[in-house]
Amino acid sequence: MSDSRKVLAGVKRADRRVRVDRPHAKYFRYQAPGVLSAKLAAEEPTTPLGQALARIRRALFGRPLSNEEELVERLPKWKALPVFSSDVMSSVAYATEASLFTLLGVGAAAFGWLLPISFAIVGVLALVTLSYRQTIRAYPNGGGSYIVAHANLGVMPGLVAAAALLTDYVLTVAVSVSAGVQALYSAFPVVTPIAVPVIVFSILVVMAVNLRGIRESGTIFAAPTYIFLGSALLMLGLGVLRTLLGQAPQVTGVIPAHVPAETFGLLILMRAFADGCSAMTGTEAVANGVPAFKPPEWQNARTTMLIMSILLGTMFLGTSFLAHVSGALPASSGESVLSQIGRSVYGPGPLWYLLQLSTMGILILAAQTSFADFPRVASILARDGYMPRQFAFRGERLAFNAGIVVLASVSIVLVVAFQGRVEALIPLYAIGVFTAFTLSQAGMVRHWFTERGAGWRRSAFFNGLGATVTAIVVVIFAIAKFALGAWIVFVIVPILIALMLFVHHEYAEEARGLEVRAQAVIPPPRRPRRVVIAAPAFTRAVVQAIRVGLTMAPDVEVVHVTADLDEGEQFSERVRQQVPGTVVVTVESRYRSLVNPFVRYLETSQEGHPDEVVIVLIPDYMPNHWWDRILYNQNSHRIREALVGRRDIVVLDVPYRRERP
Amino acid sequence: MSDSRKVLAGVKRADRRVRVDRPHAKYFRYQAPGVLSAKLAAEEPTTPLGQALARIRRALFGRPLSNEEELVERLPKWKALPVFSSDVMSSVAYATEASLFTLLGVGAAAFGWLLPISFAIVGVLALVTLSYRQTIRAYPNGGGSYIVAHANLGVMPGLVAAAALLTDYVLTVAVSVSAGVQALYSAFPVVTPIAVPVIVFSILVVMAVNLRGIRESGTIFAAPTYIFLGSALLMLGLGVLRTLLGQAPQVTGVIPAHVPAETFGLLILMRAFADGCSAMTGTEAVANGVPAFKPPEWQNARTTMLIMSILLGTMFLGTSFLAHVSGALPASSGESVLSQIGRSVYGPGPLWYLLQLSTMGILILAAQTSFADFPRVASILARDGYMPRQFAFRGERLAFNAGIVVLASVSIVLVVAFQGRVEALIPLYAIGVFTAFTLSQAGMVRHWFTERGAGWRRSAFFNGLGATVTAIVVVIFAIAKFALGAWIVFVIVPILIALMLFVHHEYAEEARGLEVRAQAVIPPPRRPRRVVIAAPAFTRAVVQAIRVGLTMAPDVEVVHVTADLDEGEQFSERVRQQVPGTVVVTVESRYRSLVNPFVRYLETSQEGHPDEVVIVLIPDYMPNHWWDRILYNQNSHRIREALVGRRDIVVLDVPYRRERP
Repeated sequence: MSDSRKVLAGVKRADRRVRVDRPHAKYFRYQAPGVLSAKLAAEEPTTPLGQALARIRRALFGRPLSNEEELVERLPKWKALPVFSSDVMSSVAYATEASLFTLLGVGAAAFGWLLPISFAIVGVLALVTLSYRQTIRAYPNGGGSYIVAHANLGVMPGLVAAAALLTDYVLTVAVSVSAGVQALYSAFPVVTPIAVPVIVFSILVVMAVNLRGIRESGTIFAAPTYIFLGSALLMLGLGVLRTLLGQAPQVTGVIPAHVPAETFGLLILMRAFADGCSAMTGTEAVANGVPAFKPPEWQNARTTMLIMSILLGTMFLGTSFLAHVSGALPASSGESVLSQIGRSVYGPGPLWYLLQLSTMGILILAAQTSFADFPRVASILARDGYMPRQFAFRGERLAFNAGIVVLASVSIVLVVAFQGRVEALIPLYAIGVFTAFTLSQAGMVRHWFTERGAGWRRSAFFNGLGATVTAIVVVIFAIAKFALGAWIVFVIVPILIALMLFVHHEYAEEARGLEVRAQAVIPPPRRPRRVVIAAPAFTRAVVQAIRVGLTMAPDVEVVHVTADLDEGEQFSERVRQQVPGTVVVTVESRYRSLVNPFVRYLETSQEGHPDEVVIVLIPDYMPNHWWDRILYNQNSHRIREALVGRRDIVVLDVPYRRERP
Repeated sequence: MSDSRKVLAGVKRADRRVRVDRPHAKYFRYQAPGVLSAKLAAEEPTTPLGQALARIRRALFGRPLSNEEELVERLPKWKALPVFSSDVMSSVAYATEASLFTLLGVGAAAFGWLLPISFAIVGVLALVTLSYRQTIRAYPNGGGSYIVAHANLGVMPGLVAAAALLTDYVLTVAVSVSAGVQALYSAFPVVTPIAVPVIVFSILVVMAVNLRGIRESGTIFAAPTYIFLGSALLMLGLGVLRTLLGQAPQVTGVIPAHVPAETFGLLILMRAFADGCSAMTGTEAVANGVPAFKPPEWQNARTTMLIMSILLGTMFLGTSFLAHVSGALPASSGESVLSQIGRSVYGPGPLWYLLQLSTMGILILAAQTSFADFPRVASILARDGYMPRQFAFRGERLAFNAGIVVLASVSIVLVVAFQGRVEALIPLYAIGVFTAFTLSQAGMVRHWFTERGAGWRRSAFFNGLGATVTAIVVVIFAIAKFALGAWIVFVIVPILIALMLFVHHEYAEEARGLEVRAQAVIPPPRRPRRVVIAAPAFTRAVVQAIRVGLTMAPDVEVVHVTADLDEGEQFSERVRQQVPGTVVVTVESRYRSLVNPFVRYLETSQEGHPDEVVIVLIPDYMPNHWWDRILYNQNSHRIREALVGRRDIVVLDVPYRRERP
């Protein structure tokens, strides 16, 4: 057959195939010759069990979404705000308190430092916001610190940022959900003994909602976020107003928490500052999440970022101010500072309960920001080959399921290990985020110097300033928090980086091993073939392998390794009589091992035939149940292991299972 | 080609193959056309790591033994005695003590019952011995209770006997090695705190020796057995002699162990009797082990059994007698009764130490009987399909490795769980053995009634008497020991039987599924073939699969499921250009799942072609390291799972690995 006739025949054949399923509009849409598009029906499982599971999955997570629906799943600004900034806003509920907790060690006199520290923190926040607004414009397809540092500074800075950020998101989930449940038992002490199960359950709920896809998360989580915003802003407004009118709210009946006494000094101030800075984690989620916004993506993201920062600054300063005037402080009862302020402003009535409940809501939702960004960062890393590919796949609901599930699992492990004690986790916190900030902004400086677009000097100046300030924060963190537990981050991040480099190396090896040279035309098989069946017994599985072999060569060689020559004689009799076209070779193995003698036989009989390709067919009985596997031999697996990748040998597994009705 | 010419060509081909390796006398010996015999060299691993491991294995366990060497591995009587009867003889070290321990609860006055109880036990022993001697003659290829009960009474009685026996052997290992180490710390109290690790280590040593093969076990274990025999018989002789001379040995300085007070009654006597009966476990090992004796097997086995019983009876009665006259009793110090008698006879000198050490040796070696018989029973069960096949394989040294390793592992778990406390294990003990005795002898009665050979009435009478007596012992056990822990046997045995029946069912299913009808001649493949490649990307693995496909059909269909049509377009361009003879079908899966759309496509395109066989080739990238597996997709596995066993579909896995140098 000439080449052109062959091609023609090929097209005809393709056409025939494709025409076949025109009547079956049930499963496929015909697009072009050789191109079909699967309908939703083609995805559905066909077994009753599979269908039942699919129904359950859809009830929990919704119907599958097609790729085209991705645009519909984008977030409008009012939904993006709860999804991406709940982390930042929720920190109002614990950042001030964390600073006070540290200051309490040197006595209530040190509380005077709270306001200056708060102003410093808000200053850093303003700089970071400014920087990220520039990044978002420069990287309209997503400008998280991994992308920016990787693109401008190189692989290692990129991975440091990524590892720091991933670590941080895990901690955020653990800390914020724990804090949320703490808010709950401020109001309902009955919850205290079952705190850990409640925390774990809450993480699972947030996970489940995120598996429904990002847009639905926005819808579901919008209400609690806006209720918290409303009740917190109302409280702050009323409190400030009363203070201005000379009737400052006063917290009563609080016994200060017992805190080990410390000496006042710079280190304490640095620690209090670092505690407060934990408010800023989650700021970068918007930059990573630009592609999740409705178009024009980058403009909407910038606006959302600005709103978020203004809200955070206002609420953080307001809380610190009211804590200062009302005398709220970390209580031995575990009642949070925010709850104390709320009680002093609202009195212990329904508004106070609403504040408590919505605080709990927003704290649990703070985890939402991590759930929105961790899977996205992981998917970018997986796309670049630094994490297992599974992280890059979108599930039925277009969510990055692997990332969501891994994030939930690891943070649950943390919560259980630390028994939900928030303060124990906070020292581990935020240092990663500020490392990522620094690297990202340093990368932006490099970016501006390379691009030199309009106004690049101004942009470079602000990013440079941001990088410098956040670097200082990192140093402060390292000094203030190292011994308290932040050293763990210095252990985890290098381990994560090593793992990521290892994964990258393995994928690169695989790609090299599997790459087909471009342009190389692969010739049809021309070398003489010898077909060998590894036959442990005369079974249907072996018969199937022999029949497959006979489609490749006019006769096949059935090699039977046995410890018992009589049995071997019977075997070869049966094969010769019952399967024409076979040559049986019996290899007696008096030492009872089966794999090595088979391999040696192949090698030996290959010698002197350098032109020949040996095709080894390995029949493989497939049991119906996984637990049946221990009942069967691993010999087929071991023969494959020994032969695959050898010169002039092609291995084919021929799995066999009884025909299903 | 006519059939006869085909066959001729086949023979020629076989001849060519086989001739090829005549020069390679290194690996194979030519036996007949198409029959080779692998030499030891063909077993040896070829990789440096494999060779190093083999060297270590051979240093520990010896060189591999061929099947022909099995006869050389047979046991002469003097080696069979330690291998098969160490269990029985060692029970002298604890059976009397166990009875005394029970009697102690009602006070020292009850010790007078020790001698009558001992006579009763020796009476049972005599009956059992008589019975088994008859069984051995009737079943010269091995007449363990499983075989006899299974053959004469049916499946369930056989499995009950087997499960009871296996349970018992595990307990024997745990009890006897624990008792051995107790003997050690009677002499050297310094060992007490590390008793459990010493027990575990001892079990591992016995396991290792058994992995060297049964003959070497006999050689290695003969010396300690005969030393124990010697020193115990000497002690008994001297002690009895001194008693006859009116200078009965007197035990001094022993504080009785604290035992909860009990009321004297029939139950106590029954318990003391049951405790002593534990001496009889291991009696049946000789019957199972007949094939391990040198020819004439059954005669040698019978003689060995007789010697064993006489030795046991003598030593058991002697020990009970001397315990009675010397006043030895379970001591609060943990010093064993045998040690006390030895001290009173020998004085605390070197002969006493030798007795202690050899007691320790024989107790640890008692485990040897279990190690000799458990793997043998397991191998018989595996041969009959009631246990996983691995138990039927002989290892390099002709030992049943799987059984040996499983026995050691389970008994180690028991020792650790019970922290080596022998008394806690003894109640669980021996009931299984007596159940097996009863079933075996009942089976023999049935046997004689069926056979009706010369003297069958006499034989049936003795077996019937044995069955009756041992059945009574079982009832006594059940009453006396049930609440003390023997109930666990009533839980474990049914579970074991259920597992064995389940395994049998699964193997039967497999056999049915794989059976090739006898005489059926399998026709060559005639139906039109369509070859489909499941191609996730354009890689060398896919190219290899395509080339394999082209050996089966003139053109192949490459099916590519993708979530991204642009990528699909590029893929199909490359395949069309680079691999002639292919037809590419792209299936767009907008819901991103890959397996179901592929399966639906196959089904759809199969319709209307009932004559066609579809051969699906699944390229499968094989990573070099097991830990790489999580980095790769499970899709090829899932496609195989979905397709194997379907009508008119043959699945072939095409594993690919980069060619090794």
